[in-house]
Amino acid sequence: MKREKALKIVKEQLTEHRFQHTLGVMETAIKLAAKYGADEKKAELAAIFHDYAKFRPKEEMKQIIIEQAMDPKLLQFNAELWHAPVGAYLVKTEAGIEDEEVLDAIRYHTSGRPDMTVLDKVIYLADYIEPGRQFPGVDEVREMAERNLDEALIQALKNTIVFLLKKNQPVFPDTVDTYNHLVKKWREVNE
Amino acid sequence: MKREKALKIVKEQLTEHRFQHTLGVMETAIKLAAKYGADEKKAELAAIFHDYAKFRPKEEMKQIIIEQAMDPKLLQFNAELWHAPVGAYLVKTEAGIEDEEVLDAIRYHTSGRPDMTVLDKVIYLADYIEPGRQFPGVDEVREMAERNLDEALIQALKNTIVFLLKKNQPVFPDTVDTYNHLVKKWREVNE
Repeated sequence: MKREKALKIVKEQLTEHRFQHTLGVMETAIKLAAKYGADEKKAELAAIFHDYAKFRPKEEMKQIIIEQAMDPKLLQFNAELWHAPVGAYLVKTEAGIEDEEVLDAIRYHTSGRPDMTVLDKVIYLADYIEPGRQFPGVDEVREMAERNLDEALIQALKNTIVFLLKKNQPVFPDTVDTYNHLVKKWREVNE
Repeated sequence: MKREKALKIVKEQLTEHRFQHTLGVMETAIKLAAKYGADEKKAELAAIFHDYAKFRPKEEMKQIIIEQAMDPKLLQFNAELWHAPVGAYLVKTEAGIEDEEVLDAIRYHTSGRPDMTVLDKVIYLADYIEPGRQFPGVDEVREMAERNLDEALIQALKNTIVFLLKKNQPVFPDTVDTYNHLVKKWREVNE
């Protein structure tokens, strides 16, 4: 699908603020894909559609999670996580995107997963560091993303977990599994 | 088993430093048990034996984890965790302690578990705040332990997870499950 068509489809699903964020993720994802060897067209497409389901009603997302037999523990955790797997489903059924690598990058962009592909990592990180993002620690991750994809991703995951702990919020187990997996690999190579 | 006999058995297994720590855990655990309604004698016994396996060789602990079919993912995580489940096994087979509540409190004193008993919580927390412990954040948890067992435990778990993240160390999933379980209960009651 061409960029213009994809952007037109997504624009109808998002607020203007979220659409601007999506453009930032798209630009960042293309740069990261070029730098770290992911397919730039797939990165572009996954970035454009990553928040496709962001503004769907919670009840609709819940129904889809149940009917499509997605991970049931999603329902025990923050609804903020749901738009990623639900988005992958809707992008396939409503927008006709069939590429499983693109759909996976959308599916795992909030939680991560232990064996993330380079494309998964690019989308997760682009979502975290796109130019519109402003929060403590984001510049450190931006700098890391200039030199090492996994180092930046580990830092983003750590920041996310600490943020949740400070707010007394539950932490989705897959996010910790993703961190554990990456940090073990990192330590094997670097220590 | 009487306190004196238990202390005599344990003293042979520990360094002097670790034995002094054990005495601190014992005193703290008895106070917490009295305050929060756990059996004081069980708390005393679990505290005395909680670090029984602390100085066993890693290879011996690994063998016991495999032969006794303990959680295999223990072997994928820091060996610091192992002395708790291995300790429960050795305290039963070598010291003859049969009380499953006492053995559970020993078994889960490093990782926690989602449905911790009051006795489990008392031992976990006593180990964290006994008077010999000195590290950033311990006084805050001591104060919390004066007013609410779960609040103090949540803070101790959070501190532990953040400590591991800062050191780029893996986080044992059961510890996050324990935190998630407690914090969900806490939020239901307090928010």
